[in-house]
Amino acid sequence: MPQTVSAHMMLTLDGFGTGLNQTRENPFGTINPRDLARWMFEDGANNADEVKAVTDYGAFIMGRNMFAAPGETVWEESWRGWWDENPPYHAPVFVLTHHAHDPIEMEGGTTFHFVTEGEAVALERARAAAGDRNVSIAGGVTTLRNYLNLGLVDTLHLKFVPLIAQDGERLWDGLNAKLETTGARHSRFATHVDYRMVK
Amino acid sequence: MPQTVSAHMMLTLDGFGTGLNQTRENPFGTINPRDLARWMFEDGANNADEVKAVTDYGAFIMGRNMFAAPGETVWEESWRGWWDENPPYHAPVFVLTHHAHDPIEMEGGTTFHFVTEGEAVALERARAAAGDRNVSIAGGVTTLRNYLNLGLVDTLHLKFVPLIAQDGERLWDGLNAKLETTGARHSRFATHVDYRMVK
Repeated sequence: MPQTVSAHMMLTLDGFGTGLNQTRENPFGTINPRDLARWMFEDGANNADEVKAVTDYGAFIMGRNMFAAPGETVWEESWRGWWDENPPYHAPVFVLTHHAHDPIEMEGGTTFHFVTEGEAVALERARAAAGDRNVSIAGGVTTLRNYLNLGLVDTLHLKFVPLIAQDGERLWDGLNAKLETTGARHSRFATHVDYRMVK
Repeated sequence: MPQTVSAHMMLTLDGFGTGLNQTRENPFGTINPRDLARWMFEDGANNADEVKAVTDYGAFIMGRNMFAAPGETVWEESWRGWWDENPPYHAPVFVLTHHAHDPIEMEGGTTFHFVTEGEAVALERARAAAGDRNVSIAGGVTTLRNYLNLGLVDTLHLKFVPLIAQDGERLWDGLNAKLETTGARHSRFATHVDYRMVK
């Protein structure tokens, strides 16, 4: 089986993955991440397969704003990501950035690598690092939309959460992609829909 | 069982029920209605329950633009709706309008009644006409949003079609409602998601 490139994202019903006014205190801005991720935090035991599907990859790619607070243009050397010392990735994570940075090795197998050469190079490096496992585009919204518009994603897995945000970063705005729905499941706090990207 | 008020609507992934530039030739504007309703037209036999759920009501309510071409402010007396002489409702349909009109009786049990006194009165009349059956808000987007914002809808049933419209009438814009997801199913051309409106 060749490697696949997948992406998982939690969205409000109106398509927002992040609210307005992201800060270090509120990484999702006006959206409360606990509301968005309630299906994972409060119903994870009943969603074990869905949770596993989000994290079981050989390498991840994320945008710079998913790693550090948005708007901060230089690296603060003490910053080691939003997570604790043992992030949930347990694999190499390639962070797209305009500012070079040495790799940061965390506990549990996660190492953050910083890529300044753009989306295609980050994917190439992630593919190489993943070995015979698959690659996940971890987010955020802009990074995912860029990869979808570049035609580099095979499957998309959206978790629609019954919230309405009204503003923020909307996945659909400027998205130019053709999708085919392949499955849908409802769990307590989210509707999980799978898409195949038509190339 | 007391009557319930339900609403069914087909939406693009980005939340549009109607595209831009609605005309008499293109009632859904830039969205091709056959793309939006493909689950019903091309896969209806496999979706018999979903199709039945959309049409099996004792009375319907719709906005004026769902009955006639948008922008036309006076009634053209020969206009008898977008459908043929035997519309798919087979029950009284209450059309919200600012311009009074005599009822129009069609074949198969459908009669269009025109209500100039607003949403609450239309619902009152629909409830009375429905007898022991339920009432459906048939659309379009603005009418449904108004009823949701008024807290007059019990259950909402959305059919998400894997299309991206980018512009038109979006259900979420200006919607102020709390939803709880109660079910989700995937059929060939749509994802069917059921919501209970939290009051």
